[in-house]
Amino acid sequence: MNSLKMRPFLRAAFLVPVLLFLLLAPEARAEGPDWRSQGIVYNASSPQAKVHTVPIRAVKMGEGFWSARMRTNVEQSIPSLLPLLESHGVLDNFRRLSSRKAAARRGPLYTDSDIYKWMEAVAFVLQSGDQPALRAKLGQIIDEVVAAQEPSGYLNTYYVQERESLRFTEMHRSHELYCLGHLLQAGIAYYRATGETKLLDAGRKYADYLVQNFGPDKKPALTGHPELEMALVELYRTTGERRYLEFAGYLLGGDRMRLNLTDDQVRYMFSGIPFTSHRKFEGHAVRALYASSGATDYFAETGDEEYLRALAILWRDLVDRKMYVTGGVGSRAAGESFGEPYELPNATAYAESCAAIANMMWNWRLLLVSGEARFADVMERALYNGVNSGMSLSGKLYCYRNPLESAGEDVRAPWYDTTCCPPNLERTFASIPGYLYGTSPAGIYLHLYHSSTLDWHLEDGTGLSLVEETDYPWNDTITVTVKPAQPTEFSVFLRIPGWAQKAKVTVNGQPAQPPAKPGEYLEIHRVWKTDDKIRLTLDMSPRVVMANPRVREDLGRVALERGPLVYCLEQLDFVAQDSVSDVSLPLGPDPAKGFITESRPDMMGGIVVIKHKGIAAPKPLSEEPLYRAWSKGGSKGSHEVDLTFIPYYAWANRLPSPMEVWVPYTTESPRSRGR
Amino acid sequence: MNSLKMRPFLRAAFLVPVLLFLLLAPEARAEGPDWRSQGIVYNASSPQAKVHTVPIRAVKMGEGFWSARMRTNVEQSIPSLLPLLESHGVLDNFRRLSSRKAAARRGPLYTDSDIYKWMEAVAFVLQSGDQPALRAKLGQIIDEVVAAQEPSGYLNTYYVQERESLRFTEMHRSHELYCLGHLLQAGIAYYRATGETKLLDAGRKYADYLVQNFGPDKKPALTGHPELEMALVELYRTTGERRYLEFAGYLLGGDRMRLNLTDDQVRYMFSGIPFTSHRKFEGHAVRALYASSGATDYFAETGDEEYLRALAILWRDLVDRKMYVTGGVGSRAAGESFGEPYELPNATAYAESCAAIANMMWNWRLLLVSGEARFADVMERALYNGVNSGMSLSGKLYCYRNPLESAGEDVRAPWYDTTCCPPNLERTFASIPGYLYGTSPAGIYLHLYHSSTLDWHLEDGTGLSLVEETDYPWNDTITVTVKPAQPTEFSVFLRIPGWAQKAKVTVNGQPAQPPAKPGEYLEIHRVWKTDDKIRLTLDMSPRVVMANPRVREDLGRVALERGPLVYCLEQLDFVAQDSVSDVSLPLGPDPAKGFITESRPDMMGGIVVIKHKGIAAPKPLSEEPLYRAWSKGGSKGSHEVDLTFIPYYAWANRLPSPMEVWVPYTTESPRSRGR
Repeated sequence: MNSLKMRPFLRAAFLVPVLLFLLLAPEARAEGPDWRSQGIVYNASSPQAKVHTVPIRAVKMGEGFWSARMRTNVEQSIPSLLPLLESHGVLDNFRRLSSRKAAARRGPLYTDSDIYKWMEAVAFVLQSGDQPALRAKLGQIIDEVVAAQEPSGYLNTYYVQERESLRFTEMHRSHELYCLGHLLQAGIAYYRATGETKLLDAGRKYADYLVQNFGPDKKPALTGHPELEMALVELYRTTGERRYLEFAGYLLGGDRMRLNLTDDQVRYMFSGIPFTSHRKFEGHAVRALYASSGATDYFAETGDEEYLRALAILWRDLVDRKMYVTGGVGSRAAGESFGEPYELPNATAYAESCAAIANMMWNWRLLLVSGEARFADVMERALYNGVNSGMSLSGKLYCYRNPLESAGEDVRAPWYDTTCCPPNLERTFASIPGYLYGTSPAGIYLHLYHSSTLDWHLEDGTGLSLVEETDYPWNDTITVTVKPAQPTEFSVFLRIPGWAQKAKVTVNGQPAQPPAKPGEYLEIHRVWKTDDKIRLTLDMSPRVVMANPRVREDLGRVALERGPLVYCLEQLDFVAQDSVSDVSLPLGPDPAKGFITESRPDMMGGIVVIKHKGIAAPKPLSEEPLYRAWSKGGSKGSHEVDLTFIPYYAWANRLPSPMEVWVPYTTESPRSRGR
Repeated sequence: MNSLKMRPFLRAAFLVPVLLFLLLAPEARAEGPDWRSQGIVYNASSPQAKVHTVPIRAVKMGEGFWSARMRTNVEQSIPSLLPLLESHGVLDNFRRLSSRKAAARRGPLYTDSDIYKWMEAVAFVLQSGDQPALRAKLGQIIDEVVAAQEPSGYLNTYYVQERESLRFTEMHRSHELYCLGHLLQAGIAYYRATGETKLLDAGRKYADYLVQNFGPDKKPALTGHPELEMALVELYRTTGERRYLEFAGYLLGGDRMRLNLTDDQVRYMFSGIPFTSHRKFEGHAVRALYASSGATDYFAETGDEEYLRALAILWRDLVDRKMYVTGGVGSRAAGESFGEPYELPNATAYAESCAAIANMMWNWRLLLVSGEARFADVMERALYNGVNSGMSLSGKLYCYRNPLESAGEDVRAPWYDTTCCPPNLERTFASIPGYLYGTSPAGIYLHLYHSSTLDWHLEDGTGLSLVEETDYPWNDTITVTVKPAQPTEFSVFLRIPGWAQKAKVTVNGQPAQPPAKPGEYLEIHRVWKTDDKIRLTLDMSPRVVMANPRVREDLGRVALERGPLVYCLEQLDFVAQDSVSDVSLPLGPDPAKGFITESRPDMMGGIVVIKHKGIAAPKPLSEEPLYRAWSKGGSKGSHEVDLTFIPYYAWANRLPSPMEVWVPYTTESPRSRGR
């Protein structure tokens, strides 16, 4: 801890839990306790935080939906990705610098960030509990990374030797600051896992080099691929050193004039001009959402209302016009970019895994500064669907793109030359426990539901355990046993998902007051005593969803959701020969009728499928003409087929197969169609 | 004519009209009469031709739809494009070579083809009747072009001087053979207009240079941008020199191995591999359709059945899966290329004007070798809509892209740096009279209807005039007065458009037998005598058309057609504030009900508009959420609006305005929607 000055606490209330923690935690180290209480982000002292995070270590995951995925992540994904990073030279790129070996550098210029993200993933795993072998491996890699750092602090494996003269001269493409951002995040996560600062110190040294040489009165800087903004705010939160926050502000302010950036560059990078001047999402989706995440962090610390205004406008632009129903974002492969409003094509959707993750990260940050459940809704939508689809059930294959319709091409691969998504998915899955709960001076928040035990405390220091039992998202009931250290008056904030129209909440069997409203946190304020029981029941009926008619490819189609999960049809589940492209879903005045849910523990790790009758065209539509006279009721001779919907995240985990999220519907009964 | 050896006539029957023509035409020149009898293509001796062309000069256009456009073309388009070609250096690129001036070459490497197409347009105009000033101007330009030709025959303004060493080394991009193709077509058109061979001789000299140096046993060649194939077959038809046909066959055969072409190059260029191996359209749309046109010409001369098989498969791929309802083709801006089957997005449609022209050119050629009306249907669809939209009503602005939906961006410009479309539109409009009629040994064909007089002859030499009176496509009646030199037994083949379900035909007031079938030529065989009258009545009711449900963006939408015209909605015609994006068309069991057609001579040069009630969303859809629960009947509070459809070709001729061809429909009445 020598090199870290802890930020002075702004809230006296926080001293109490920290002191208690020191007393209670036998493994607390004398140098400073704070790292153990820091969550995915650490906003305990952020002036604008409405909800504070809970450290990953305070949450023990029970059996369930995410713990199975997390186990696969630790046992399959993380161990299998490292050899691939090795065999593609990502670590040798560091070793050749410290050992001065002649071997050439390999891979695109941003590969450093790939190993940093992998390291951050491992650090999050270690925050859930020590794993000596994994920890030792990570320690060794940290040594190898740090050994490549130059005395100045500069640490990047691409801009070295013959390319040294190009350092910081082409920041619109160099990813130098992007890589530093991921270095810092890995260093911070490792510190929060172990209290060790070696990697963090290395990142900080590089950051110091940057701050000393760049800025308003120094040389101009540009993130190019925003990411460092988030990392610098987190470095500020971790160290208390305000210069990192200020440098994040400088980057977010944009230094376009001195950098001679073109309009196209500024648009694509979503950086270089004042963040507060943005009024719509455009350009590269991951860049734009990382910038927005950093801007939200910056607002959390500074309270600059200009940021809040821009963030509010951008959020509406995203959720009203540019987000897939899966939480995926980025409509176009060209430039991995946002499209125009309502440009949300399904088959050609880019919807990069990293962009869904960035969407989740941003909405998480908005939730923290607002306490508003609408942000948790988007976060959950992205996590369960557009993020979750990115990693195969085996844990060893990844989607870069996450389209909502497919002709059956093989979308999953163990490796991409630009391999940003795999370690990004791994760090996200490893950090899930940190997203479940939160605190405010008023009490405790439940954001995402999963079987788990929370061992933490209220903000006044009162010890608090929660035991959450649920099979969410498969089943409809969540029970929470509240265990305060002593009977205490506080609020439990239960998130009622926006889709949960008929949520019921009881406390010790009595209906809670006020009644639950979808899309809000239900505040249950009372004197809580040990073993008080909350029971939340959510309506898990399948829901038929339509898109705004302006979404060109979704007109005449519906999507199916159940709980937080979006469903899809895969050709593999068709018994008959009909093509998934040629069926439609008959819907009556009550669209919920006719759906049968069926638990299938045998399928893809255990899923709930949804069945419904469908209508298939009399002959393959590929044999019909391209244009013909319209007539009510469609073609003669349609026939019924059995449709089996599976959760979208589970698609492409068997054989490659055509898939469709948005299914054409008809409001005419099969019988009336055979005119 | 010294340098031209005429091809021996294969059909003795043809000698008769030629001899008659020589006797009757006072301006016939001693050197050879043939040029006056040659149409847009000259297939009188093509072994596989089922229908032969009629020269442009034989058709005198009456007042009507196309003659108005043609007048604008001659008076506005052609004269205004030349100064733009001049000011962009297109002609100076030639002059600098003959005068050895130092000025640098300007523009992309294919600018030669732009002036060649303009020259061809002028030549087609001259085929309709002499215009001394235009002819003099063209003669002067021909002199300037030919002056730049090297003694070897090589003629290209880009691969000269410092780039001379690159000649024929980068044929996948060089457009050298593409430019030669357009040079030949211009030379042939000018020859057919005037009998003068200066330009044709220059092109032929260049073609000879090519044939001498390239080929199976010589250096490998590649068109790269197909076009020369068509031109070489036409050169063969014009000169009788079989080596040009053989070289076209060599190019169509592809020389991939010797050229080291990649898969991507072959796909994009639609050349380099045997044309007969193609089974689907892919890559650059204009390239693919020019190649197909050349292949059809090649089949017409050789009868190689492999070509016919490939052409038949490709045609089905186009019309069943890859053609817009406007006859436009090329779904993607990226690579100006075809998309996957049913990938026909509306707003992002590329549908380059040149591709619609190429579609028309190809179907014209397929019609000539088959005599089947389905090809004329596609030709007409493209000409009236996707080609016609490419030139503004003013004649001075052009669309490069012809999308089927627009947010109101300005799509028309007087100039493009790649200015292929403007002169291509001009040459197409100038050649329209040549598409109206055809002959076969059995009689006379009427392909496209327009007020006009044909002065020509049957293939046995009997003189024949036709006087066609019609206001097609606005009105439903076409009368044809048949005037054979003497009473003669032959057939009149009347094209019954595929859309014309209730076509009625009378001859001298008596119903023709057999009755007309849509999508076929009605053969009326009899002894025709002077002033026999045919009357064709077509059902001009508006037609509601749907696309195959596999077309993602057209599901839940319909398009409106009347006669050969596709209609659209433009925001400008909305009285109320509702957005064109937010209305739908209510359709009952008889979709034809509720439409009112209205002749509007005051609008855009005189059009027929179609009116219908529409349903508008209660508030702008931009204020509605992106996703919501589906419910039957849509939102409460919808209201009626007046919809005015205008012909698609006329869009974007007032102020820039949002536009839509495919309009959402509803089968619920307005009243039942306010639930």
